[in-house]
Amino acid sequence: MGVVTASMQPVPEPERLARVVLSHACEPGDPTNASLVRQLGAQGAVEAQRQPKRDSALHTRIAAVDPAREMERADALGIRFVVPGDPEWPERLSDLEAPRVQGLGGEPVGLWVRGPLTLDRLDESVAIVGSRSSTVYGTHATDGIARSVARAGFTVVSGGAIGIDAAAHAGALAAGGRTLAVLSCGLDRVYPLENAPLLWHLSREHALVSEQAPGSSPTRQRFLARNRVIAALTSGTVLVEAALRSGALNTANWADQMSREVMGVPGPVTSASSQGVHERIRTGGAVLVSSGEHVLEMLGASGEHLVEEPRGAERPRDSLTRGDARVLEAVPVSQPAPVTSIAHLVALHPRDTDNALHRLSKAGFVEYAECGWRLAGPG
Amino acid sequence: MGVVTASMQPVPEPERLARVVLSHACEPGDPTNASLVRQLGAQGAVEAQRQPKRDSALHTRIAAVDPAREMERADALGIRFVVPGDPEWPERLSDLEAPRVQGLGGEPVGLWVRGPLTLDRLDESVAIVGSRSSTVYGTHATDGIARSVARAGFTVVSGGAIGIDAAAHAGALAAGGRTLAVLSCGLDRVYPLENAPLLWHLSREHALVSEQAPGSSPTRQRFLARNRVIAALTSGTVLVEAALRSGALNTANWADQMSREVMGVPGPVTSASSQGVHERIRTGGAVLVSSGEHVLEMLGASGEHLVEEPRGAERPRDSLTRGDARVLEAVPVSQPAPVTSIAHLVALHPRDTDNALHRLSKAGFVEYAECGWRLAGPG
Repeated sequence: MGVVTASMQPVPEPERLARVVLSHACEPGDPTNASLVRQLGAQGAVEAQRQPKRDSALHTRIAAVDPAREMERADALGIRFVVPGDPEWPERLSDLEAPRVQGLGGEPVGLWVRGPLTLDRLDESVAIVGSRSSTVYGTHATDGIARSVARAGFTVVSGGAIGIDAAAHAGALAAGGRTLAVLSCGLDRVYPLENAPLLWHLSREHALVSEQAPGSSPTRQRFLARNRVIAALTSGTVLVEAALRSGALNTANWADQMSREVMGVPGPVTSASSQGVHERIRTGGAVLVSSGEHVLEMLGASGEHLVEEPRGAERPRDSLTRGDARVLEAVPVSQPAPVTSIAHLVALHPRDTDNALHRLSKAGFVEYAECGWRLAGPG
Repeated sequence: MGVVTASMQPVPEPERLARVVLSHACEPGDPTNASLVRQLGAQGAVEAQRQPKRDSALHTRIAAVDPAREMERADALGIRFVVPGDPEWPERLSDLEAPRVQGLGGEPVGLWVRGPLTLDRLDESVAIVGSRSSTVYGTHATDGIARSVARAGFTVVSGGAIGIDAAAHAGALAAGGRTLAVLSCGLDRVYPLENAPLLWHLSREHALVSEQAPGSSPTRQRFLARNRVIAALTSGTVLVEAALRSGALNTANWADQMSREVMGVPGPVTSASSQGVHERIRTGGAVLVSSGEHVLEMLGASGEHLVEEPRGAERPRDSLTRGDARVLEAVPVSQPAPVTSIAHLVALHPRDTDNALHRLSKAGFVEYAECGWRLAGPG
């Protein structure tokens, strides 16, 4: 969290309760709600809608919420409600208020959290997202990257879905790292059911997060809104497999709008699951990464994760003298050439050329065959 | 060739013979030779080295060549010697004289050509190069791209090697297109032997090209010099599989120095054969392409090959009215919700919501289950 601000004062209870009301009564990123909260604050927004003369749908919904009771219920399930001003509230979520962030914009009124991992551990975090219909290749690539960034201390954030999301969480777990799933339904729900064991484990040892109040179902709009939270919570988003209209691309759009790094892991061009990722990289909307080290290099603020540019293995050839290297360059690949012909090519005396060829032969670079010299083995 | 220039005059025989001498006596891209030719012209360079007082290695080599006899020998093998000023000489080779092109620079003194395809058919051409140790995936991807660009009328240029090169030539042939191999040895040689049938076919129906005079062996230096010719002859270079120190990267370097397009086809990040390509794309040294259409888009001067950005299949969802789409967004994915709850979410009258749900149900988007509505099938 860093600097000491007014937020060191505990958030007043009426403020928190007003946000509980809004979280229950409004859809995430609802522009009317966001604009009301911006103008009047959470309490003001709720009070304005509670005026008896109001007869809007929002009024009806707000009137129906008993925030204290909702808090009790959530508490009984081990779910806490974190709001702006709380010590664990991530400052970077305010990037959602930036004018250039469009669509289901706006900072969430609060986040429901289930699990011991606190949201202030997300300064070094990365979203790894992708297709639900992942391939074995995609799952494997995701696992490797998630392990590697988790090992470096980064929290792996994903959406708790099957496919790439599940592989990202599992990879972080396998490396003994931290991971967090942002869901599009209430945290009392288990969705998707296939991931029940994973989600249960995260809720006990790491964290589940949702903008949705307990009891909420996942809807398509909530998926899209959830994606903006994944992008906002993290320093960058890695796309692993995403077909051309994958929801993962939506997360990348959000990341891009908030000037977060967008990275893409390529795959076979013959795989539909990689098409969306390739299209991003091709059009400059994502940087190609092929390992966790690349991801860390993109995100490493202090340069501590800078990757040495891979150069291929050092070859014995690199240690030759310039003269010998020059002779070697002139030795034919397959059909042997006599020493005079090689001397001719490199414009050296035949005796010097012969000496060089014998040194190169001892070092295993060339061989004498029939009536001349040729390279030993493939160049 | 386009515009009428002085080159419409046939190249004088002494000039051509001088170039035959230089081609036989000098290594490709030899800087001394290149500088002599630049200062004195080909004939001047040969004459200067023929002075009896000269006693350099070059002098000895030049004295040993009988150009008229070499021309006869080449002619007997069906090999012609094309020089600057000949109608089929590709003007774009002069880009090798640009100051920023470094290393084994300089325009070739001439090119030996075997086969009916003339070098003036290279205005629309693309180099497709890559690893000799290609994978099945790489070969398959190369084949697809080569077919597609050849079908669009582009000449596919490669190095006649095994692996990606062979797949590029074969793909162009399969599509009934034009293809040309630039070799690093004399055109009377068959190298590599594995490709003998392919090379033989190209020499009969298309073309083999070499800067090396007949009788020359392939050497490492000649491989590198050959790469500069591949890059110079074409509008752009596509890298398919290239490990970190692959020779194909060298071709890409040449292309880059001459401001040709450099493109890379990605592959699995787990494949060492794709590492060099990924590194190029990652560091901005190549544009990701995943199909022949992408290659044509990069090279298509007139925009005729512009690819429509793939958008994924149009979904039935896209044709819904705004109101129905809004209702659909609020329908839970799995656990059914009653119509009142959905109406509540979208702030619509329950009757209107119910009508919308029935329309959506008929269109197959939602289904009624137990006591409420949910999405039909995966979202």
